[in-house]
Amino acid sequence: MRRAIRLTADPPRRTSPNPYVGCVVLDADGRFAGEGHHRGAGHPHAEVEALAAAGGRAAGGTAVVTLEPCAHRGRTGPCTEALSAAGVSRVVFAVEDPTRDASGGAERLAAGGVEVVGGLHREEAERHNEFWLTSVRRERPFVTWKFAGTIDGRSAAADGSSRWITAAQARRDAHALRAVHDAVLVGGGTLRADNPHLGLRHGVVGEPPLRVVLDSAGRIKPGARVLDGSAPTLVVVSDRAGEPRGLGAAAGTLAVPSTEDGLDLAALSERLFARGVRSVLLEGGARLAAGFLAGGLVDRVVAYLAPMFLGGAGLPVVTDIGVASMAEAARMRVEEVRQLGPDLRVVMQPEPRDLDACLRTHSA
Amino acid sequence: MRRAIRLTADPPRRTSPNPYVGCVVLDADGRFAGEGHHRGAGHPHAEVEALAAAGGRAAGGTAVVTLEPCAHRGRTGPCTEALSAAGVSRVVFAVEDPTRDASGGAERLAAGGVEVVGGLHREEAERHNEFWLTSVRRERPFVTWKFAGTIDGRSAAADGSSRWITAAQARRDAHALRAVHDAVLVGGGTLRADNPHLGLRHGVVGEPPLRVVLDSAGRIKPGARVLDGSAPTLVVVSDRAGEPRGLGAAAGTLAVPSTEDGLDLAALSERLFARGVRSVLLEGGARLAAGFLAGGLVDRVVAYLAPMFLGGAGLPVVTDIGVASMAEAARMRVEEVRQLGPDLRVVMQPEPRDLDACLRTHSA
Repeated sequence: MRRAIRLTADPPRRTSPNPYVGCVVLDADGRFAGEGHHRGAGHPHAEVEALAAAGGRAAGGTAVVTLEPCAHRGRTGPCTEALSAAGVSRVVFAVEDPTRDASGGAERLAAGGVEVVGGLHREEAERHNEFWLTSVRRERPFVTWKFAGTIDGRSAAADGSSRWITAAQARRDAHALRAVHDAVLVGGGTLRADNPHLGLRHGVVGEPPLRVVLDSAGRIKPGARVLDGSAPTLVVVSDRAGEPRGLGAAAGTLAVPSTEDGLDLAALSERLFARGVRSVLLEGGARLAAGFLAGGLVDRVVAYLAPMFLGGAGLPVVTDIGVASMAEAARMRVEEVRQLGPDLRVVMQPEPRDLDACLRTHSA
Repeated sequence: MRRAIRLTADPPRRTSPNPYVGCVVLDADGRFAGEGHHRGAGHPHAEVEALAAAGGRAAGGTAVVTLEPCAHRGRTGPCTEALSAAGVSRVVFAVEDPTRDASGGAERLAAGGVEVVGGLHREEAERHNEFWLTSVRRERPFVTWKFAGTIDGRSAAADGSSRWITAAQARRDAHALRAVHDAVLVGGGTLRADNPHLGLRHGVVGEPPLRVVLDSAGRIKPGARVLDGSAPTLVVVSDRAGEPRGLGAAAGTLAVPSTEDGLDLAALSERLFARGVRSVLLEGGARLAAGFLAGGLVDRVVAYLAPMFLGGAGLPVVTDIGVASMAEAARMRVEEVRQLGPDLRVVMQPEPRDLDACLRTHSA
């Protein structure tokens, strides 16, 4: 199973809207017969690749796969059929398939007389596939909120200057984050203030992510850098506003409902998911981050903290998130902290609110 | 020398207003003959202790001492004389004595025919004695600013609630910090809002620090917890205000000049130094911290960061420090970062402003 998991992980690559899946086939004597991994939509599933590599040696053997084999006919046939047809007598998988369409594979295999074991190295396999698993479970993309700020929580000085809060190492790391997400998202304030490009720089290679920019009033200028055609771009507008003019072929548009506070971010998330986006890197600004955080739409936070103070006149990394008292704080669990050049990189995951409040109270 | 340094360090203890000093005496053949360390004002200096332990074996031997032996007659005689009288032929020390009165010891010893070597393990010895060395060089106490805040730089929610931002481990660690500083300092806002006790709790043992509370208008209430007599307390008032009434024997008062922004913190620092205070733990609030930071009066920052967000409506860990643009940021160097229970502990030291700005610009 570890070998099957490794097949999905090195190097990380985007298969969205499909999951990362790796499969190793052993022959009837338990010897390695073949392996395969899924390379993305339109390509064969991992099981099919591995069975093809194993050929006749799969008969009576075992398929070890990181995700429960699918039971549905999409662009490719169901893997359950392929496994049965190859005469595999045992299937070991790590994680249950949470999707409505594809699940039920284990049951179908068992009904066909195949011995099925689920849950082997589940945690590790979950971790390797967490963007996809989280997003299909929640029916919205996995959202990583990335920000650069000072130790006192400021993202810019009083005059708006912010170059550079973090040093080159942190900025390079942030570009590497872009490379592993399906999409990068910024709000209208950031779009207008920074005219960002949102591509991959600092020597980071890979397929550039979809650039998603919020522009509720359709005010984007045709010369904006995100419209340079170097990567796909989606301009998100309010369904009450008109289509932005002058975009031409440089970008698609997506209309979403508005609320009092601006665009409906939950609706935006659902629509991005419907378009096949399984992971989003949320890059700011402070108001958009507040909306995602307050809406419970953030799955991970990557904070680059610079050891400096800008003081109370500086601009905050996140605006009001509707928290009035300690009991309502948006609590996280630290997954990792390390020094990155002169700065700190802190990775956090939201904590189920009630559990954490309870633990803090009783550890006092 | 390492042995001499260790004598000053384990366990850390307060010798203020005097330095930590350790001394090892070797006989003429380079064998261990005796050791000693300074235990605080009124006790013998380390050299005198070590010479007493070595007895006649010091003659023709070597004294290894962490600080340049003093050349002045204070409460005890000059160590230079004691070393000469014992017939020591060689003195090796780590750090030059920076004080006006006591320096010149090396010169005097050399003039008396003793071989003198300075600078051995200087850095390590500096570190062990940094409160005292920094304070006598700057003629003000070494100031450690300690705060507990969220990753977004908030010390309390919008309603003022702050219990608990950090978990028990961080709070215990903060009490251990109190135990190694001569004084603990809080501002008038914190005094009135929190009615703090400022003693040692959470199982931390040691001599409690001097409690210094700012109370520019002399409004402290006789029932305040810092007036409980469990440790000495100093109430700092403006020299324009009258003495606070009703303090009795529970606290001394110190009048300092005021500026437009409140009490003159540089003057306060000098006066605390004049009273023998060599290290201060600055515990808040946000406005007092801003004054110390803006005034360049902070020598170290210990930040306990809780992995949570309170958002832009929360109260900031530090108020306006007069920084308008990135070029003016109060930059630090990270000395240490680690996880402490669920929280982070980040230790920082102010960076010489120009050097750091230059390094950041050219590493871009």
